[in-house]
Amino acid sequence: MCRWLAYTGEALAPSTLILDAQHSVVAMSLNSPLGAETVNGDGFGLGWYPDAAPGAEPAVFRSIEPAWHDQNLREISRAVRSPLFFAHVRAAAGPPIQQTNCHPFRHDRWLFMHNGSISGFGTYKRDLVLDVDPSLYPFIQGTTDSEVLFHLALTHGLMDDPVAGVGAAIRRVEQVGRDAGVPFPMQGTIAVSDGSTLWAFRYSTQGRSRTLFHSADVPALREMYPDAARLEAFGDRAQVVVSEPLNDLPGVFLEVPESTVAVLDPDGYHHREFLAA
Amino acid sequence: MCRWLAYTGEALAPSTLILDAQHSVVAMSLNSPLGAETVNGDGFGLGWYPDAAPGAEPAVFRSIEPAWHDQNLREISRAVRSPLFFAHVRAAAGPPIQQTNCHPFRHDRWLFMHNGSISGFGTYKRDLVLDVDPSLYPFIQGTTDSEVLFHLALTHGLMDDPVAGVGAAIRRVEQVGRDAGVPFPMQGTIAVSDGSTLWAFRYSTQGRSRTLFHSADVPALREMYPDAARLEAFGDRAQVVVSEPLNDLPGVFLEVPESTVAVLDPDGYHHREFLAA
Amino acid sequence: MCRWLAYTGEALAPSTLILDAQHSVVAMSLNSPLGAETVNGDGFGLGWYPDAAPGAEPAVFRSIEPAWHDQNLREISRAVRSPLFFAHVRAAAGPPIQQTNCHPFRHDRWLFMHNGSISGFGTYKRDLVLDVDPSLYPFIQGTTDSEVLFHLALTHGLMDDPVAGVGAAIRRVEQVGRDAGVPFPMQGTIAVSDGSTLWAFRYSTQGRSRTLFHSADVPALREMYPDAARLEAFGDRAQVVVSEPLNDLPGVFLEVPESTVAVLDPDGYHHREFLAA
Amino acid sequence: MCRWLAYTGEALAPSTLILDAQHSVVAMSLNSPLGAETVNGDGFGLGWYPDAAPGAEPAVFRSIEPAWHDQNLREISRAVRSPLFFAHVRAAAGPPIQQTNCHPFRHDRWLFMHNGSISGFGTYKRDLVLDVDPSLYPFIQGTTDSEVLFHLALTHGLMDDPVAGVGAAIRRVEQVGRDAGVPFPMQGTIAVSDGSTLWAFRYSTQGRSRTLFHSADVPALREMYPDAARLEAFGDRAQVVVSEPLNDLPGVFLEVPESTVAVLDPDGYHHREFLAA
Repeated sequence: MCRWLAYTGEALAPSTLILDAQHSVVAMSLNSPLGAETVNGDGFGLGWYPDAAPGAEPAVFRSIEPAWHDQNLREISRAVRSPLFFAHVRAAAGPPIQQTNCHPFRHDRWLFMHNGSISGFGTYKRDLVLDVDPSLYPFIQGTTDSEVLFHLALTHGLMDDPVAGVGAAIRRVEQVGRDAGVPFPMQGTIAVSDGSTLWAFRYSTQGRSRTLFHSADVPALREMYPDAARLEAFGDRAQVVVSEPLNDLPGVFLEVPESTVAVLDPDGYHHREFLAA
Repeated sequence: MCRWLAYTGEALAPSTLILDAQHSVVAMSLNSPLGAETVNGDGFGLGWYPDAAPGAEPAVFRSIEPAWHDQNLREISRAVRSPLFFAHVRAAAGPPIQQTNCHPFRHDRWLFMHNGSISGFGTYKRDLVLDVDPSLYPFIQGTTDSEVLFHLALTHGLMDDPVAGVGAAIRRVEQVGRDAGVPFPMQGTIAVSDGSTLWAFRYSTQGRSRTLFHSADVPALREMYPDAARLEAFGDRAQVVVSEPLNDLPGVFLEVPESTVAVLDPDGYHHREFLAA
Repeated sequence: MCRWLAYTGEALAPSTLILDAQHSVVAMSLNSPLGAETVNGDGFGLGWYPDAAPGAEPAVFRSIEPAWHDQNLREISRAVRSPLFFAHVRAAAGPPIQQTNCHPFRHDRWLFMHNGSISGFGTYKRDLVLDVDPSLYPFIQGTTDSEVLFHLALTHGLMDDPVAGVGAAIRRVEQVGRDAGVPFPMQGTIAVSDGSTLWAFRYSTQGRSRTLFHSADVPALREMYPDAARLEAFGDRAQVVVSEPLNDLPGVFLEVPESTVAVLDPDGYHHREFLAA
Repeated sequence: MCRWLAYTGEALAPSTLILDAQHSVVAMSLNSPLGAETVNGDGFGLGWYPDAAPGAEPAVFRSIEPAWHDQNLREISRAVRSPLFFAHVRAAAGPPIQQTNCHPFRHDRWLFMHNGSISGFGTYKRDLVLDVDPSLYPFIQGTTDSEVLFHLALTHGLMDDPVAGVGAAIRRVEQVGRDAGVPFPMQGTIAVSDGSTLWAFRYSTQGRSRTLFHSADVPALREMYPDAARLEAFGDRAQVVVSEPLNDLPGVFLEVPESTVAVLDPDGYHHREFLAA
């Protein structure tokens, strides 16, 4: 339903990836060749851990305008520098279009964003919301399935163990959804971070998830493309996870497999099975 | 926290009361002499039963912009004619400022708006939301206390008996609020309509409610002010209930007493005790 | 760059054509098969002569949100009735996205909207603006080529003779544009009305104009499609001019030829050559 | 008509002054004791030279929402660090409320903002716009007197000599205004910067200008208020110019006299006569 990108590495102006790349996130807002919807014009969000304020909570800029002509997004993404940021463009299943329904969502030092949906959500939303810890309930501000999923994951321990927390939340969604007669409740790709490590999940009940790609190592890319000027913007630790490749260079973006969680930290990229049958 | 106006009578352009009156609702958005807050700039709403579409559901136009310079409100309130309409300007206790938090709220043929607040709402919101009938739960779209109150009243039979429904909802708020340690949970004035009758409530647990006024009969006013050009806009059945008087003419606006529900229908205005101790 | 629709006939809820039609204007905002751009998400406008207020100026509702999920557009287009209305969805060449750049534009009783562009406008905008009558200059509120074209047409007598006024304005654009080295300055389709007659122009300097269609006579359509339930919404005088057909029924929408002005008035539809070489 | 603040000194989070100060700019948006209008809710702007991108153009974040509840302004002003920033809250004389009418305005490395008005602007706007250099004309995007004044100053050499440029622009406004029969055309306070030096003007034709204050030296303040915790946020070179004092501490904010330009640069604060009779 949406497109997203997450970056970790040397501090970078987010504009490098969300405005200036060949198939940037802003370009995807108007035209997503691999998306479930080609237009993602129902608002956007940028969440970033500010390089200017180490240790601070991430900042979040969200808007209900389409990303493609938004002047403020251009200004802000060029002016800030961040070692870890999330960008998201939304294609809503329906109204309301409001900032509280735009990703990423934040809780303390944590950011969360999602592309996909909980199938039949309206019919069992109340049951899922009741499952959210009462102390977390007041933090739900919008009406999306994604925000409820985040708060379920927080309820199930995301801040202690993100993989276990997200896994338990998805299992709960699947259980409640199936009880409501929905055969394939969960669909999507999810990004989570605490500012140091980035977790990216690709999973759907049916095993036919939205696309997800990660970038190859920059040093390896420099060997592959010694003349690629566009690589100069990136440091050796730069890594990207994104709904679809940002450019057409072969080998730069590699698919994240189904039922996988990718982990990007100072040791680089690695992934492992997630909720596999 | 807000200002509101409700009109019933001969079909009228809402602009007559919300733009052109001496102390119009739009003027109140910038300066409310009798308001708990003087500025009501956090969005607005206009709900009207269209004269052009008898029997249809009311239409609702809501915006997050301040009313005072909103061009669309000027256009729409001048172009339509309605025999019964609600207007509301919001002063939010806090974000989010979004259309789903703007009054009036609608359910089927019913409109609802509120000025005031449920004290300490955040600490027991979850308990009140759990009280809402599960079949009504999916219709809650925003985050306000007012919208939850409306859905509680619907749960308690508002569509069959509005006075009983609103009364039961308030009693429930008071019970849950007191259990949470809040001495005076309910505060406010409320308007409800089905398109034929208008009910206006003034009540607070403490007995110190927001102000509420109703207009005197137009035929009587014509006798009092035979030269008042501004009365020409109104038919003999025109009646207004409003947070504060729309003009300075003595005798035109009369206070609705504490713990009262005012009923405006084809028989005119009358009021009776509501939730009195 | 945009899509538009104009209706004249028996008073009708605009929603019939802009929401409920098979290929409605709102549907075109997200996907325009025949458009220069497929997405028209940079705001929209609805201008209507209110049936509720005969003789009044047309009302205009404009928004910078995409039309496809806009709740207010749904509400208003269903609540009002109009014998003549304009709807427009915008695909901006660039920012700024603001209400004053949304069509239709209004002057006194006149409405104007445009799909297309003045090629190289930025390089000779100042010269065109200087050509606008100084008494009309203060009414220019936005930054679009379309609004300047409207004010040029007003300067050249649109309110006395719309065909001559629009023609003279286009000729002036072509002259100034060619002086600036632009071979094909004018491109587009234009709708103009005074509330009684509707003029629709299709013209480009190069003779390769944006598409434009008009509806066949409703009585004839009823004979062609005696079982078409969707025709029941329309009166015998209903006529539509639109950027692309609203449905797939053969014969319902006919192309307006190049270099043509179509005139829709109580005598029905007819067209004649416009600025032909 | 507005309120503004300009800061220069050690890099600082703008939130320190626009959110957290006792009488912050955001507080002034809802209540300006010394303002011509008490409410400044018609949009806002933040312009900052990013500490994260030395030598870059300033970034500008503008919005049509009231500042007081704007969540994005909170996020951005806390996340960035800047050695020189402008903040502005607008009280519009009338619509349109749009981002292109929000201050500050930018041209290359220059920022400009204004509180006040050109009296009778509508009647001679065209003459002033014609005075703008044709090469600068395309950069005018909005409809305000302030933006035209900025482009007049650019036309008259602001980028070479800001004091001469602004002075010549004001003299031109006064000449054209008086020719149009307006006795006191110019009113206001103006801030201009190139990222290194900050110029702040206080001038009106009538000699009754909007209020303007500058902060005393921080080292001197530390001696005056050795226990003032709020001073800890500021470095020794911190200087503020603002429409009205940010706190009630005597001696912290000093009035900038009438017909004066204040200059804030690495040598500190000094001012001199500007356009005195």
